[in-house]
Amino acid sequence: MAAIRPIGVIRTPFACAAGTPIQSSVSRGAEGRVELFAGFRAGLRDIEGFERIWLLYSFDRASEPQLLARPYLDTVERGIFATRSPARPNRIGMSPVRLLGMQGDALLVADVDMLDGTPLLDIKPYVPAFDHFPVERVGWYEGVSALGAVADARFERP
Amino acid sequence: MAAIRPIGVIRTPFACAAGTPIQSSVSRGAEGRVELFAGFRAGLRDIEGFERIWLLYSFDRASEPQLLARPYLDTVERGIFATRSPARPNRIGMSPVRLLGMQGDALLVADVDMLDGTPLLDIKPYVPAFDHFPVERVGWYEGVSALGAVADARFERP
Repeated sequence: MAAIRPIGVIRTPFACAAGTPIQSSVSRGAEGRVELFAGFRAGLRDIEGFERIWLLYSFDRASEPQLLARPYLDTVERGIFATRSPARPNRIGMSPVRLLGMQGDALLVADVDMLDGTPLLDIKPYVPAFDHFPVERVGWYEGVSALGAVADARFERP
Repeated sequence: MAAIRPIGVIRTPFACAAGTPIQSSVSRGAEGRVELFAGFRAGLRDIEGFERIWLLYSFDRASEPQLLARPYLDTVERGIFATRSPARPNRIGMSPVRLLGMQGDALLVADVDMLDGTPLLDIKPYVPAFDHFPVERVGWYEGVSALGAVADARFERP
């Protein structure tokens, strides 16, 4: 498999895990900047037509991967692939952030939920025709509210 | 950044790009299997409660990354980050497939849209509270229908 390398960096108000929103959906509009490295900027053509974009990135400060983890929203251990926790194999995160516009070569975004300086791996347009599915069964998230939920240090590298 | 390594393989009916559905949402229920490598199976605990799961994977047979590409659904070149095309930097794909159940240690899934033998990088639960956003502006996808759309060889490694 070809090596995966950062294509940019994500700037956010969050310096450490404690207090960082656990998802874009509960980020209350926190703003950030997506700075692509110089070689990749041409790929941003047409991006401004989209209201929301997926950011794929590396949880670079997460602890070693765990196969069982107690998620922020639960009190018991769950299989890591049944959670969105950062301490997962390959440590890839994805967040559907709101695109506010361009500022020079950077993207201004809102609803960020990642740490400042997070390495960016990819950007994809958020398209409801591809990303929305009617889903009823959501496993252990059933009845759990993430409203206002923020992270703590449990998945942070010591 | 830590190296990213496959954690399993995705089996699908699609041997080459031509004829492969371009998204899960237009896959018409095509079925596949997600086979995790032995060291990762413990991470599947609790997964069966979810109706749909995100698969993150490598577009391992895509051509060299292009910053401008003519997507399957368009006739003009777009910035790669404004498309879901496979020939993108880092070649990471994501698909929200339907989880049918377990078969031994494998996951049986439907709505697959990736090639047979695709290297799996991550599995995350699909949670509408995290993944659904009301979005009106979808850039060049506006008015474009993906219904029944299948890929051709344009992004396949020669």
